[in-house]
This record gives sequence, C-alpha cells and structure tokens, in this order.
Amino acid sequence: MEYKEPIKGTTMSFRPDIKVLDATIRDGGLVNSFHFSNQFIKALYETNLKAGLDCMELGYKADRDLFDVEKFGIWKFCDEEKIRNVIGENNTNMQLAVMADVGRTNLERDLPEKKDSIIDIVRVATYIHTIPAAVEMIEHCAKKGYRTTVNIMAVSKAKESELDEALAILGQSSVDVIYLVDSYGSIFPLEMRHLADKYLEAAEKYGKKVGIHAHDNQRLAYANTIECAMRGVSYLDATMAAMGRGAGNCAMELLMCFLKNPKYDVKPVLRFLQDYMLPLKKNGVVWGYDIQYLLTGYLNLHPRNAIAFTNDKREDYFNFFQELMENE
Amino acid sequence: MEYKEPIKGTTMSFRPDIKVLDATIRDGGLVNSFHFSNQFIKALYETNLKAGLDCMELGYKADRDLFDVEKFGIWKFCDEEKIRNVIGENNTNMQLAVMADVGRTNLERDLPEKKDSIIDIVRVATYIHTIPAAVEMIEHCAKKGYRTTVNIMAVSKAKESELDEALAILGQSSVDVIYLVDSYGSIFPLEMRHLADKYLEAAEKYGKKVGIHAHDNQRLAYANTIECAMRGVSYLDATMAAMGRGAGNCAMELLMCFLKNPKYDVKPVLRFLQDYMLPLKKNGVVWGYDIQYLLTGYLNLHPRNAIAFTNDKREDYFNFFQELMENE
Repeated sequence: MEYKEPIKGTTMSFRPDIKVLDATIRDGGLVNSFHFSNQFIKALYETNLKAGLDCMELGYKADRDLFDVEKFGIWKFCDEEKIRNVIGENNTNMQLAVMADVGRTNLERDLPEKKDSIIDIVRVATYIHTIPAAVEMIEHCAKKGYRTTVNIMAVSKAKESELDEALAILGQSSVDVIYLVDSYGSIFPLEMRHLADKYLEAAEKYGKKVGIHAHDNQRLAYANTIECAMRGVSYLDATMAAMGRGAGNCAMELLMCFLKNPKYDVKPVLRFLQDYMLPLKKNGVVWGYDIQYLLTGYLNLHPRNAIAFTNDKREDYFNFFQELMENE
Repeated sequence: MEYKEPIKGTTMSFRPDIKVLDATIRDGGLVNSFHFSNQFIKALYETNLKAGLDCMELGYKADRDLFDVEKFGIWKFCDEEKIRNVIGENNTNMQLAVMADVGRTNLERDLPEKKDSIIDIVRVATYIHTIPAAVEMIEHCAKKGYRTTVNIMAVSKAKESELDEALAILGQSSVDVIYLVDSYGSIFPLEMRHLADKYLEAAEKYGKKVGIHAHDNQRLAYANTIECAMRGVSYLDATMAAMGRGAGNCAMELLMCFLKNPKYDVKPVLRFLQDYMLPLKKNGVVWGYDIQYLLTGYLNLHPRNAIAFTNDKREDYFNFFQELMENE
C-alpha cells in the first residue's frame, strides 16, 4: 500500500533499527516511590527477555544526598550490587539502562567504569535550559564507556529556536540517542510528526538516533509513539499497562501488537499484565488516563495538580478545570 | 505553523464545516440496553446544547417485530411521543438523529413524514454487502424530508475495490454524509488518513460530506478522529466518557478540548461527566478500553468475544489471546 506521506518502512515489513525500551520501573516507580518487590522486578526482567525487548530501564541513579533512602525503593538509586542480587549478571542481548536527572545525581561518585558495571546505557534527563549540564554528564558517561541517551523534557514549553539550538548542541556531543519527550502529554500527532522530523533532521546530520517517550494525558501516548516510529524514530519507550507518572505512558501491550518484527511477542506481556500489573492496581496503586490529566495536558501544564486531584480522590472535574484556568 | 501534510485548516483556526455529533445514547445504549433514566437524557440534552454540539443521536429506530420492547429501554425504538415527553420540542439549532440498521427497522411503518417529526437526521447503518438496501432506505428517508447519513460498518474487513464501488454508489444517492466507521477499532492513524482521503475524494465528487465514527479498541479512537478531522472529514462522532459498545468511542471531553471553534465548550461536558457518567460507572455499567479489546482490535475481529470476556469478569488475557488465535 502506498501512502501520501513520508513514512519510513512499510506497514507489512519491519525496520531493524527499531528498539523498544521498557520503562516500567523507572516511570512506574514515580507512582509507587519505587517500592517494587524483587519478585516483580525479576518477573518483569524475564518477561522483557521473552517479549524480545531491546532495553530495560531499571530506575534512577539518584543522589543519596538529595533523596532519603528510607523513603524510596532501591530502584531510585540502582546500586550495582542490588541490581545483580535481583536479576543476576544479565548475560543477554537486552541492554540495561538507568536514568540520571540533571542536578539530582552524583555520577562522579556513584557511576563506576562501564567495565565494572551491569548497566549499559545512561539516560540523561534534562530541561532545555540545562542542556550544558546535560552535555557534561553525557561526556562523563561516555568517557566511562557507557552508551547514552538524552531526554529533553517538557519540549511543549520550549521555544522552537531554543529547541533548534539544543538539538545542534546535542548533535555535537557524544550522545547516541536524542529523545523527544512529551512530558505533559500535550502534543497532538500532527505536531508530533513535525517534531519527529525536526529531531530526525538534526540527529541524522550528526549520526544520532531519535527516541520517543510519550505520556497519555490526552490519550495520545500510543498514537504519538507509532506516528513517530513510522516517521523514522527508532527508540520507542513503553511501560507495562502504561504504568507511569500521572496519566502513564505508551502501553507495552499496544506497542507489541503494532510492531511487525517477529522477535517481538505480546504473549509474555499479557501474562505479566494478569500476574503482576492487575494485582498492583488491585492493591491500590493508581495511574493512567483520566479526565484530570486530559485537562492539564490540554492546558500544557505539569501534571502535578492532576496527580494531587487523583490522590485526593476528587471527582469535581468542573471545579478543577476552573482552578487550573485561574492559575494559568 | 506549516506542516508537510495536506491538512485542511490550521491548528490556530477552525473550520465552520466541522459538526460534532453526540452518540452517547445510541452507542452507549448498546452497553446498558438503552436503560437510561429520563433525567439522564434530559441532562445530556441540556449539556449538549450548552457545549455547542451540532447533533445529538437519540438511539435506534428498531423494529418492534424483531426486538422485545420489554427487554430494551425506549431509546432502542425512539417513538416520537416518547422523545418529546423527555426533551420537549427541541426549538434549537441542534439537530436530532436516530440510527436505522439495514434489515432491523421498519421505516415505512415507523418513520413519519419529516413535517410531523422531531427527528432531523436518519443515520443508516449498513455493511458493505447491504449497500443496495441502505440506498433504498436513504431514498425513503430523503423522500419523507429527512437529512441522512450512511455508516458503512466494519470497513476494515471490506475489500478496497468493493469500498470504491460502495462509495460511488452512495455518492449518487441522496445521502448527505458518508461515515467512515472503524467498527472493530482496528485501523491505525496512517490507514485512517488514507481512508479519509479516499472517502473525501468520492464524497467531494458528488457534493457529500464525510463523517468519522471511531472505536477505542486500540486506544486510537480520539487520535483517529482528530486525524480525520484535520484531513477534511467534517462530521465527528463522540460520546460522553467514551461510552459505547465494548471499548467505547472517541470521548466528547477529548474532542471538546481539541476543537478550536469558540462555540464548543468543554465545561458543561465536565459537569455531566461528574454528575451522570461517574454514577453510571459506579452502578456497574462497564465500557471502555481494556486489554481484551486491544486483542480483538489487533486481530481485526468483532468485539463480541471481548465483550463476553468482560461480562464474565475474566482476566486471563493470555488464554483469551490463544482462544482468539485458534478461532481465526
């Protein structure tokens, strides 16, 4: 079938450059303060291997001087030894990733040389105004032997001219993958395709890949992810049952059904959903699309007020919308 | 902003040809056998007026000889008198619609002349192999003075050559709007845009408009609806809280946030959601996206097995997927 659009690949074939990353622990950990059982993590790891995933993000490399270790589960800090205790040595083709936030990590102290680490990829999360700090972190990780990605957050708030500059700076860094991140879940597919083209143009110029990390505030995380994929974006983030902060992410089960590469298999994901994700929900862990997230997404706002609305078990959408409008 | 795509309108303006139809009672009625309270219907009607909607679908015009009136609420049959009892004479600009299924209606007997009716639009629902019967119904309604739409269901199962022929036949009929219907929720946005272009080409040739009625099996109902809208589709179906058969439809609250025409207002919709849709859910009426619907959507199957899975309160997605694969 021929389409009147610049798509990469066809709907009957697959692109070997596509890589799927499971971000369940890292983004989902923002919902339950990283309090996953070891059994959950081990089962997720086995599921990801069986499903043919390319990368698994284990959590954050957060600075203990800034975050209380008593308050968070171990996946907030991702110590080498603790990772190995749960998942073993990872003698597989699946790469392991951690996220490091600009200003909230001490990589100098906490990140060993790659040869001594079970981690393969460090994902540097930055706002557009902290790009220079992000580049410093990228170069630090690269020097230690890691692959790196950079996640430019809240891009829906960034000026286009700043974004162009940021992409040019990152293109000239050692980073391997530049991620388009819809932190507020406020970007529509049309804009997403436009942004994907922009990222791809900059990335291809410098020999980088582009990734997509979407949020479901306007119920568009999956649509935006596959639209980016067809445009040429190759790193796709997803989470089991869409678990992630607020409205959650692109659901792994949806993505597994979309992708045509026979190495991907939705069946182990379905088993994990029934055995682990449903019990999590039943135990009161709350995430996923709801009206309050639509409203912050629509208004291009950080979801923090919608998360508070959810935690307070409020259902007065009308008043909430008025409050958001007043605070704009 | 310029986009590399053939979009109609811009993201900062609005197209006056866009019409929004609330299908809550009709498609939602498939979930609760049309057992809505009069208070619910009256409040929905008032909400739709305040929200600036263009059309409200009241239900089906079903044949009493085929369906037991004891089993269904009155909105399955949409008698003139019963409509008036609840919503009055509708002296407004909002048009009222009913759906008539090919082979399940007796319009000769049950549909009065337009001058004696509160109904403005008859929506004829047909499969591709019953197009001649649909055309007969369209002409019958047109002769009585109604505006008509035709909803070609299950288009994801139709051959492309058959679809081309169907569109040409319908183009030459008296129908006003030809609806693209994703009955199984199995169509991806890329295909949707392609189909929208096909429908629009045929429709514009004959001076018709095109509509979109999407289902959320793959969580794409909203994405597909707005993608079609940007392509030039002008009649957009949505339902409150996405209420509709199985995975449900495009949510009205999402669509109200997307559309730029200042006559549309999400605020009354938010009030209706909290006052009427949440109580419906709390009273055990079940609809909306879930894994079982993703699986039938992915396999391009009628959702009936997923609906049974839901009604049986099953959660064994893995087994269900195996069952679906075996029955293919």
